[in-house]
This record gives sequence, structure tokens and C-alpha cells, in this order.
Amino acid sequence: MIGSLVIVGTGPGKADLMTPATKAAIAQATDLVGYGPYLARVPVIQGQCRHASDNRLELDRARHALALAAAGRKVAVVSGGDPGVFAMAAAVFEAVEAGDPVWHALDIRVEPGVTAMLAAAAEVGAPLGSDFCAISLSDNLKSWSTIERRLKAAAEADFVIALYNPASKARPRQLGEAFALLRTVKRGETPVLFVRAAGTAEARVIATTLGGADAAHADMRTLVIVGASTTRQVGRWIYTPRGARP
Amino acid sequence: MIGSLVIVGTGPGKADLMTPATKAAIAQATDLVGYGPYLARVPVIQGQCRHASDNRLELDRARHALALAAAGRKVAVVSGGDPGVFAMAAAVFEAVEAGDPVWHALDIRVEPGVTAMLAAAAEVGAPLGSDFCAISLSDNLKSWSTIERRLKAAAEADFVIALYNPASKARPRQLGEAFALLRTVKRGETPVLFVRAAGTAEARVIATTLGGADAAHADMRTLVIVGASTTRQVGRWIYTPRGARP
Repeated sequence: MIGSLVIVGTGPGKADLMTPATKAAIAQATDLVGYGPYLARVPVIQGQCRHASDNRLELDRARHALALAAAGRKVAVVSGGDPGVFAMAAAVFEAVEAGDPVWHALDIRVEPGVTAMLAAAAEVGAPLGSDFCAISLSDNLKSWSTIERRLKAAAEADFVIALYNPASKARPRQLGEAFALLRTVKRGETPVLFVRAAGTAEARVIATTLGGADAAHADMRTLVIVGASTTRQVGRWIYTPRGARP
Repeated sequence: MIGSLVIVGTGPGKADLMTPATKAAIAQATDLVGYGPYLARVPVIQGQCRHASDNRLELDRARHALALAAAGRKVAVVSGGDPGVFAMAAAVFEAVEAGDPVWHALDIRVEPGVTAMLAAAAEVGAPLGSDFCAISLSDNLKSWSTIERRLKAAAEADFVIALYNPASKARPRQLGEAFALLRTVKRGETPVLFVRAAGTAEARVIATTLGGADAAHADMRTLVIVGASTTRQVGRWIYTPRGARP
């Protein structure tokens, strides 16, 4: 018997930001596989097996989930946010590609969710109101020169830039280097937002400028948004108009 | 008495992809303001006023919503997808900036939702698995040269590219021109996905390549994803590995 695997995202944190489709997919699973703090967001169901793991072992976790599904289990891989954005879905397909050919026959699907940058944007207004890009500052799996090239291109073409994984204990320097690079292209007055724990009850916003931005304000739970040339404040809100001249 | 205004997104279409927070915000409103087809996704509540409008009148709709809130109503502005991504939130803040100063005192907030590119990505696997950008091909509010500059920068820096508003009856030519430009930078074998009505019961995917992509496959309900150099097929799925070499 062959099982199934669904890759879901809990959304940013608050229970009412998880979609009903994701809630149902989790409830129907026999096995949940995920990083401990994400599993902790999911109500316990009697008889359901929980396989919690460390955050940095995505591929091991993906293989474990696929092996469980191949053994006939109904598996839900639980990410935060949206599973397709800097989360578990790509890791699962990497594992499928490099793994047991029988995994190709599995019923695998992805449920979309609310990714961190959308929750962060909603906390402050509408900073993603025009063209934008999302860049992970983690150089665990790609070179720092690739990241620099993308930051520079995004700044020169005047995208709003959402920075995922801006900092961690093991990577304290990347965000400061990114700000330094962006300052060579974007104006010092460009709005910069540090949104910590967006979409949770502990959400906290620091609104500053590129010239004044201190990378020390970011940690693993922070999403950083760097504005476009048009991004600005109106009243208590920050937004980017849809076009060049609203 | 001064009212409130919440800007929400219904998600891509299926009722179970709307967050409970959005559902609750809509239920608590006295007045709903939105484009007709989005309002049609929302259950009718007796006594609640519905103000449906044409899709192209975003600023008029935003002003109407703000005037209702200023008159003491509890207003929900209803977008599709996420309200902060090529939807109503930016239009509301544009209207606040240019409008009646009393609007600055309103209680305005944004509820995040599942935007189209996340639902489209989930239909096919994990094509947004690495750094990506989102570009609206509508040149109603920005110049076509700005769009070309962003397409070129995104291609050269090897982002995955999600194209919103790829085509409409009034704008039939933009997507073909965008493909032509992208072909000057990206390889012809780059995966291209046309995902129509993602996150609805009528979802339909055309998976092709940049070399073979026919812009005629896109309409107003289509989200187009153009892969990065690493985007590829594994089994029935398309995904972008998290790093350069998975």
C-alpha cells in the first residue's frame, strides 16, 4: 500500500491565519513531520504520530516524511508560513528527485498558506503595493555572491525587497552587508521595516530608513522590508503606491 | 462618530483558502466594498450593505469606503488574494494620502491572505522555492519601460518571476513582449507555467518552456511563472531547488 504526503504551512503564527484547507489536511494525516515550534501550533489529535525535528535538517526531514508515505502512512509535512516560500516544499521535491524511485508514485500535494512577508506587510500598511522581490539572506545553500547580485539587481530596478532569514546566531553579518550594498544604490531615506513575529500576538515593528537601519534589530523571527523609491509614510502607515505617481 | 476600515483578501477563490481572520473581519462589517466577483465569494449576511463596483475603479472604490468609514460605518474592503499584493490596500492608502485629512484618524488595518502566486505554485509543486519576484504586467499606472527594466534585471539576476495581470482584453500584447525580452536573457528550456484559476475548482495548468510559450494562453485569471535557471521537472511536479546545487 502506498500513502500520501501533503506539504502545508501554518501561516505566520496566529491560529486564525491558518487556512481551513490546511487545518483539514493536518487533521486527516496519520503522521505529522516538522520543526518542533511549527508542530506546536497544531492542535494535538489522539492517535496521530508527531515527528518533530531540528530546524536545519530539512532534507533529512523530507526523506523521513517520504519514507513514511511510501510505507502507507498519510503524512503532513508542517512548515511555517507558506510551504513553497523558503520552507519545506522545495526540500521535499529535492528529496524526491535524488531518492527512491518509488517516491515518484506517491500522492504528493502542496497547500498554500500566508507567507511571512504578507503578514509583515499587513502589520504596517501596504509596503508590497508595487513590484517586489523576496530574497533569503541565508547562504547555507547558495553563494553570498549570488545573493549580492540579486540584491543589486533588485535595488537598481527599484523593486521593494523582502528579506527572509535576515539573521541568525550562526549568520550575524549578512544583513549588515546587505544594507551596505543597498546603500550604494538606494537613497538613505528609503523606508526600512523590521517586522518581528508578524501575524502573531507578539508582533513588533521598527520603522526606520536605509541610512539609519541597524542590522542588530533583526533575528530569526524578523522579516525585513526595504522600500522602493516610491515607498512612503502616510499617517501611521507605510505603503508603496501601485504606480510611479499615484 | 468615526468608523473603521479593514482591507481583506478572499484568497484565490476556494472558500477553504480564506483565513478565519478574514472571514471574521467580513462578518463584523456593516458595509462591504469590492469588485463584484470578489464580493460574490462572501456569504450574504442579513442587514449588511454590499457596494459592488467595476474592477478598474480602485481609487473611487477606496474613497467610497473611506467616506463610509468616516461616517461611522464598519467597512470591509474586499479584494481577491492578499489585499497588499496588486490589490486594494495600496489604493486605500493612496486615497488616504490625497484625501480628507479626517481619514488619517480612521482605524484602518489590513488582513493578510493567500495571494495568487502562492496558490499557482502549489498547483504545480514548488516553483517559488528559491529567490523570486512578482511583477504586474499592467502598464495602466506605470510605464512599460519600467516593467521592461524590472523584467530584464530579474532575468539577469536569475530570479523566478511571477507575472500578475499578464493579459486582458485591453492589454493583449504585454505578455508576448515580456516573453520576447526574457528570451534574450534566459534559456529557451526555462520552464514556464500558465496557471489559470489557481486555488479554485477550475484550476488548469499549462507547463511549457520559455522557447515554446504562447502568450495567447493567458487571460485575466492567469498567473504566469517563469522559472530560474535551476527550475525543473521531477515526476509530475515542477520545482526550484533552494540553492544552486541541491
